[in-house]
Amino acid sequence: MSERLSLGLDFGTESVRALLLDLVDGRERAVASEPFAHGVMDEVFLPSGERLPPHFALQHPRDYIEAAGRATRRALESAGVDPSAVLGIGIDFTACTPLPLDRRGEPLCFDPAFEREPHAYVKLWKHHGAIPEAERMNAVARERGESFLARYGGTLSSEWLLPKLLELLRAAPKVAAAAARFVESSDWLVERWTGQRLRGACAAGYKGLVDAEGEHPSSSYLAAVDPRLPSELARLVPADPLVPAGVEAGVLGERGAAELGLRRGIPVSGPIIDAHAAVPGCGVGRAGTLVAILGTSACHMLLGEREVAVTGIQGVVQDGILPGFFGYEAGQAGFGDLFGWFVERLLGREDAAFADLERRASALPAGRHGLLALDWWNGNRSILIDPELSGLIVGLDLSTTREQIYAALVEAAAFGTRRILENFEQHGLRCDEVRACGGIAVRSPFVVQTLADITARTWTVIEAPETCARGAALCGAVAAGSARGGFDSMAAALRSLPEPPQRRVTPRVETRAIYDQLYALWRELHDHFGLRAKHLMHALRQVRREA
Amino acid sequence: MSERLSLGLDFGTESVRALLLDLVDGRERAVASEPFAHGVMDEVFLPSGERLPPHFALQHPRDYIEAAGRATRRALESAGVDPSAVLGIGIDFTACTPLPLDRRGEPLCFDPAFEREPHAYVKLWKHHGAIPEAERMNAVARERGESFLARYGGTLSSEWLLPKLLELLRAAPKVAAAAARFVESSDWLVERWTGQRLRGACAAGYKGLVDAEGEHPSSSYLAAVDPRLPSELARLVPADPLVPAGVEAGVLGERGAAELGLRRGIPVSGPIIDAHAAVPGCGVGRAGTLVAILGTSACHMLLGEREVAVTGIQGVVQDGILPGFFGYEAGQAGFGDLFGWFVERLLGREDAAFADLERRASALPAGRHGLLALDWWNGNRSILIDPELSGLIVGLDLSTTREQIYAALVEAAAFGTRRILENFEQHGLRCDEVRACGGIAVRSPFVVQTLADITARTWTVIEAPETCARGAALCGAVAAGSARGGFDSMAAALRSLPEPPQRRVTPRVETRAIYDQLYALWRELHDHFGLRAKHLMHALRQVRREA
Repeated sequence: MSERLSLGLDFGTESVRALLLDLVDGRERAVASEPFAHGVMDEVFLPSGERLPPHFALQHPRDYIEAAGRATRRALESAGVDPSAVLGIGIDFTACTPLPLDRRGEPLCFDPAFEREPHAYVKLWKHHGAIPEAERMNAVARERGESFLARYGGTLSSEWLLPKLLELLRAAPKVAAAAARFVESSDWLVERWTGQRLRGACAAGYKGLVDAEGEHPSSSYLAAVDPRLPSELARLVPADPLVPAGVEAGVLGERGAAELGLRRGIPVSGPIIDAHAAVPGCGVGRAGTLVAILGTSACHMLLGEREVAVTGIQGVVQDGILPGFFGYEAGQAGFGDLFGWFVERLLGREDAAFADLERRASALPAGRHGLLALDWWNGNRSILIDPELSGLIVGLDLSTTREQIYAALVEAAAFGTRRILENFEQHGLRCDEVRACGGIAVRSPFVVQTLADITARTWTVIEAPETCARGAALCGAVAAGSARGGFDSMAAALRSLPEPPQRRVTPRVETRAIYDQLYALWRELHDHFGLRAKHLMHALRQVRREA
Repeated sequence: MSERLSLGLDFGTESVRALLLDLVDGRERAVASEPFAHGVMDEVFLPSGERLPPHFALQHPRDYIEAAGRATRRALESAGVDPSAVLGIGIDFTACTPLPLDRRGEPLCFDPAFEREPHAYVKLWKHHGAIPEAERMNAVARERGESFLARYGGTLSSEWLLPKLLELLRAAPKVAAAAARFVESSDWLVERWTGQRLRGACAAGYKGLVDAEGEHPSSSYLAAVDPRLPSELARLVPADPLVPAGVEAGVLGERGAAELGLRRGIPVSGPIIDAHAAVPGCGVGRAGTLVAILGTSACHMLLGEREVAVTGIQGVVQDGILPGFFGYEAGQAGFGDLFGWFVERLLGREDAAFADLERRASALPAGRHGLLALDWWNGNRSILIDPELSGLIVGLDLSTTREQIYAALVEAAAFGTRRILENFEQHGLRCDEVRACGGIAVRSPFVVQTLADITARTWTVIEAPETCARGAALCGAVAAGSARGGFDSMAAALRSLPEPPQRRVTPRVETRAIYDQLYALWRELHDHFGLRAKHLMHALRQVRREA
């Protein structure tokens, strides 16, 4: 058998990508993308046509199966390889994106009795129906001084599993009563295709409040949040084995083989969160290299050899990204979104306007525009963890131009990144290399140059367009192990395969002093609006809700 | 003689308007506008073609004579009246807009020896070449605790006569040595046309640091600023009689009659600053009515019966607006400019886009956009008097729209106006009526409604398009006196003539609570960036200068 391929299935928000990675030469042999038929249901609930409440974001689980099957078949066809050449499968998925299952492990929404019930469907990561529940969980945890909070930078997000479970209990008691389990969609898919029940260690750790021993927060804490929570959590989120990515969860069974168009018996890796898959996808398998995924939002992943409590990050999870490491995650809730808002929504320009703005913005000397912005258009994820914060621009005058504001927004995003890097280092985590991937990293030299200048570091851009899917495929190869044509560890895989295509962007010496000066001013704004006077942005949100 | 007309000549930044006011029925019989041939020379110095330094804004004094002559002739022709029907002339002019004169009273730039020397020309009010000079004057005045500062709200502007004189002494010593006087263009024109030397009380008081007795600040203060200043000021700005507007400065002589196409002997009023002429132009001749002139910037004029020290205003001058009153002036350095910046410069839209944005912004409930802005795009004139402050927007998110930002900018301007009104009242000045005039007041119902809502007052919009020229014409009629067909006082003139066309805009009750809440937040922003943390905006300007 000369062909040795691993399949990476990358489930994003709108679509799934199937990538076939050649384990001999490291080439990506084919990528095929397929959209989800129902898309994101955030205004209209398609099964009934009714309007959804604000903050809802649902998906149909059947879309995942069908789109993955189509994408895998198209990738095989496009690569011109026999399905038998695939010797490992890895799956990455958005998180926390859970759904209720019935006693047989089928989605509750497949049951005609629940097919018109929104709460029986998948709640996408960006479903924001559980804000009050998260607030209660945070308040009780702080009051009790719960030590688990430190693993999550001090604040739990409304996007995570327990707030979403509480929402289900409160908003849809009949659905909750009929459900046998409430699990990540990725876990359900792996179970469906392998027949093995499991919890992906990555999502369980980052979004499910599960610690390295597989334990949830204490019953007394859970009961203080809601008296039903201890028993309902135990019933709906049972203690199935935690499986890290790169470890075999099971092998493809009959149903999985049929749905994906592959042979039975292929090892399937424990699932991984999509952003986290980018770490191996960028060729990173060691501590001290930060991977920044620059898309509409930005994620920052860092592997560490020991566990430290870092303020303001999303989480630290043992084996959460790769086995053998503590995986640290931080992020910026708005990144490319912010530039998109300015160009498309505010200026009303087409995509093509970006290139022109980038060219003009690139020509501006650092600091010449006299502007400073806080990049909180979508709230602040790290390190303030405050979704009620908002965007700010200062320094505007009658001569301010479009390209100056564009440059200031890019700089604001870069100052936010610098704060995250600085925060990791201030807490004692080594960070001696930075790699970037994602659409913005690949498409925008100006953004990456600004990041390099403002962080005063060299940035390595991974030019492979599908680093998440590539990372998932690598996890599949490691799950297969060398005996079955894969690799015995991620380190071995990364050593054996060539690095993905990349380019290095070095900081310009001449901008250093001016950006240090601007960063000091930015910190003042950051600390004023994010800490001392945060009531101001909060009050504006409150006024808006009441208006 | 059945026809009784007064001529108002309104010298603005780009052009002059000649208005013929009918003193029988108060109608505006004709208005003619003529541009200045050299326009504003702020990039290229046309007499030599050389580039001007930044901050320069020069004019050619011959343009004033020629444009005024053409405009007056066109107005007479358009009204179809004989020049002999004109029985009074009033002149309003931008200020401080001085020029150096030679021994014969001719502009120094008319002398071929100086015609290629920029400093020999008129320095327009917005010529900003004297910022360091104003800073020095302010610093010395504060250090010495000079009491005259209180008349100017605590801070002198770089636009005023003494900083411009200091600039002349330092930057162009040969011009200063050759000059016999350095006077307001309005004073020079009245002198040219009547043969009488004078100082218009309005500009001398507001821009020339002259007190009610006609005195400059003390020699010891002036010497502390610059040892040459006491003698040079006495030489170049001699103590000619102070003539208020509405008081006869002299009658039209041969040269004036020839240049304007009128008969000799017509009484000419003391000149008045253009904005100040709007007070009588709006039909206001009593204490307690604030006149707001809403154009690219905004001016707020209030007549008072007594003198009080008001923090942060531009100035208070006895007889400065109308004889018998203390005239108080405050202002916003950016008003319509701010909306124009957003629509034209940032969005790149045509004038027509305003109507669409106003319609959409009008439909937004107060507070719904969640935004707050500081209207300091052109610095802050009142009540912080700080040209280094800049514009700020906060509350931005990914859903923020163009019309929301437009509404927030209009609200910001209105909050700034509320602060000015509040400041007058906190210092004990009665302000029981508000009248608005100027392009923005006439054209934008949305802006005026927002002003009414946010200040919680009824605003009366004067719909006459040329209130300054109308005010100047009224000053001419009062200077003529009843014996020569005019009036014996402004009060008598305003009583006799019908009010100019107007409409009343009342505040909406339902917005009151929300705007009070937003105003409290706006005050927090205002006091933070304008007082406690003003170093931040200052530092951004400094970085920009050095970048």
